[in-house]
Amino acid sequence: MNTAASLKFSDIQVSQVYQFKRTVSEQDVMGFAKLTGDFNPLHLDRDFAKKSPFKKNIVHGMLAAGLFSTLVGMYCPGEKGLYVSQTVKFRSPLYPGEEVTVRGTVTDKNESIRLITLKTEVLREEKIVINGEAKVQLTGDENG
Amino acid sequence: MNTAASLKFSDIQVSQVYQFKRTVSEQDVMGFAKLTGDFNPLHLDRDFAKKSPFKKNIVHGMLAAGLFSTLVGMYCPGEKGLYVSQTVKFRSPLYPGEEVTVRGTVTDKNESIRLITLKTEVLREEKIVINGEAKVQLTGDENG
Repeated sequence: MNTAASLKFSDIQVSQVYQFKRTVSEQDVMGFAKLTGDFNPLHLDRDFAKKSPFKKNIVHGMLAAGLFSTLVGMYCPGEKGLYVSQTVKFRSPLYPGEEVTVRGTVTDKNESIRLITLKTEVLREEKIVINGEAKVQLTGDENG
Repeated sequence: MNTAASLKFSDIQVSQVYQFKRTVSEQDVMGFAKLTGDFNPLHLDRDFAKKSPFKKNIVHGMLAAGLFSTLVGMYCPGEKGLYVSQTVKFRSPLYPGEEVTVRGTVTDKNESIRLITLKTEVLREEKIVINGEAKVQLTGDENG
């Protein structure tokens, strides 16, 4: 999906679920390292990772958490959203090449400030890799 | 800096500050869009952004927050860190080409679980763009 959704505040209901699947590759890990400057060897050095608790190179947690940006920016709410905050808990390692589901579940709508709260999760075979909470304000008028 | 620090738990003291400077470019914004799939027009479409509250394309908040990964992975603590959690509050927009300071201030050390807490900030001319809190566990033995 390359076109952002454009949900209105009134389109979004508590308990609705928005989700997509994604696989982060080794090249993506190198791309994130270059973008951010995080060249920590746990992500990039095979020999270093072998001696770590994870045994293999893992995806940067904040790259996987970057998929919450996609959830908010492309799926719910998309174009009309202003990202207010995100919490992120790194629960288990993600290895390059593993497919994940990125899922947002609407948990709250605050009408007065047009703010929605989403429970956000990165899941591998329904097991939590990362979880947290996103808060997003909706732009637009009273009718939207 | 392309080599990660390798601080030990005992090297880190409450109130110590770790920081670096970075400029996120338009190309970086496109790179993050491709990595994550977040092609929200606020970041990529000039005409759309012109009509937004920000008037110009802004950097993805989660790309700027990705610099906290660099702070933890390269500066404090670097190699011996296991990233446990990160909170992120998007306080003001960041435009491509603006230089920011990414700063971590150690606010707590929990000896029993070898966990450090950092106040984390992305600042433009000392004004907060993003702030939050990182928790990182240190691997290693009792002496480290």
